[in-house]
Amino acid sequence: MEAHPHPSTPAYQRIAATFRALITSGELRAGDQLPTEHTIAEQFGVARQTVRTGLSLLVTEGLIVARRPHGHFVRRREHMIYRPQERSRPRPVTPEMMDRFSQQIAAEGRVPSQRIEVALVQAGADLADRLRVEPGVTVVARRRVRFINGEPININDSHFPLELVKESAIMSPAYIPRGTDQVLADLGHRQDRAIDEILIRMPTPEEIHRLSLGPGTPVAVHYDTGYTAGGRPVRCTVNILPGDRHKIVFERSWLS
Amino acid sequence: MEAHPHPSTPAYQRIAATFRALITSGELRAGDQLPTEHTIAEQFGVARQTVRTGLSLLVTEGLIVARRPHGHFVRRREHMIYRPQERSRPRPVTPEMMDRFSQQIAAEGRVPSQRIEVALVQAGADLADRLRVEPGVTVVARRRVRFINGEPININDSHFPLELVKESAIMSPAYIPRGTDQVLADLGHRQDRAIDEILIRMPTPEEIHRLSLGPGTPVAVHYDTGYTAGGRPVRCTVNILPGDRHKIVFERSWLS
Repeated sequence: MEAHPHPSTPAYQRIAATFRALITSGELRAGDQLPTEHTIAEQFGVARQTVRTGLSLLVTEGLIVARRPHGHFVRRREHMIYRPQERSRPRPVTPEMMDRFSQQIAAEGRVPSQRIEVALVQAGADLADRLRVEPGVTVVARRRVRFINGEPININDSHFPLELVKESAIMSPAYIPRGTDQVLADLGHRQDRAIDEILIRMPTPEEIHRLSLGPGTPVAVHYDTGYTAGGRPVRCTVNILPGDRHKIVFERSWLS
Repeated sequence: MEAHPHPSTPAYQRIAATFRALITSGELRAGDQLPTEHTIAEQFGVARQTVRTGLSLLVTEGLIVARRPHGHFVRRREHMIYRPQERSRPRPVTPEMMDRFSQQIAAEGRVPSQRIEVALVQAGADLADRLRVEPGVTVVARRRVRFINGEPININDSHFPLELVKESAIMSPAYIPRGTDQVLADLGHRQDRAIDEILIRMPTPEEIHRLSLGPGTPVAVHYDTGYTAGGRPVRCTVNILPGDRHKIVFERSWLS
């Protein structure tokens, strides 16, 4: 059963390596239960505390979860396919009260929901750079947490220069059937290109709380900044995408 | 100095919260040294071990690094701008012995290098799916670790169906000036579109070793699969991008 029986490797590392190999090779699959601590301790001829130390490494790596009192299980990774390019495609004709996220999730037979709030916030350096305003200037933040079957899936916070949107539906924390891009267009600020930037990091304590993240779950931070034909940035959306729930997909054609 | 002085919060968490806030607000900047453990212990009225526990949280989150015996420093995040779309653009006319990666890094005044090896490997489930072969079938892996100023920056492993490339320059572990895409095209397998898939996870022990990753450093796994006009996948490149060294960037135009 041991994948790396080199005698100089500490026992807890050998235990971790063994189960890591079984998981990455697919012999143990998502949702499978690992043998009990007692069984593993007997097989390796070590104390249960040593088994616990070994398995805790795999929890930190995001490979398994501990569900007391049942034991350890291979973590499920059910990915939502996340397509930034969809935003810049014509909106499909579908039920009026559903945005693209809700359409996609409903089409998969799952139940989408979201919580929207609108706040006035001071632009930090990251937003100020992207919206070309001074740091500390007030911007409008339209914040959403999105849920699938009641579980939080991601955070989607759109930011707008205050003077552009202060008289518009964007200020109301309600769902906007035509979409905020159309609101901006109706105000004379139609977007015609966007830049997607993706950064990878560990989550902040606030993100862990808002998204109920388990140990060993990094996030992608996706900045999506929309520009008018004149080159003015009019929207900056910050998406926080937990790594255990998303696959980001782009398609591209070869240019010659 | 304390950001969250709520009395019921354990002292090590208050210490972590204080420095986390100073770092995320920008008051402490990349490369800045934190006060000594002794100084922090005095300010919070706690034991040095408590300070160490608090700071170790921030190490795990990837916010600071410990450099013994000097102390703790705010981690530097020098990002390489990583642009998947560049691959499908005409290759710029520049020094012949440089690929796009090397051109970009040299243009930034830094020293690029890479190590190439060619291996015959059995396709795992991920590659088999993408190249549409049976799992376990032999494919050609052209593996690169790329370096900037001698430090490893990312892993770039391209995979090809064996029967397509077995007589070609792709089998030789040497730099190919015209590029592997052109080799494929010359063999009659010109790519005209690609799908980019990006997954986020903690690194494997092998990746930690090959890329010299520090604690709290997640990676993006970027699968770039190239298709011919006939819809056949002829290449699948797996890029491992450490989160502390990359920003992934796409540009897109609105379609109407």
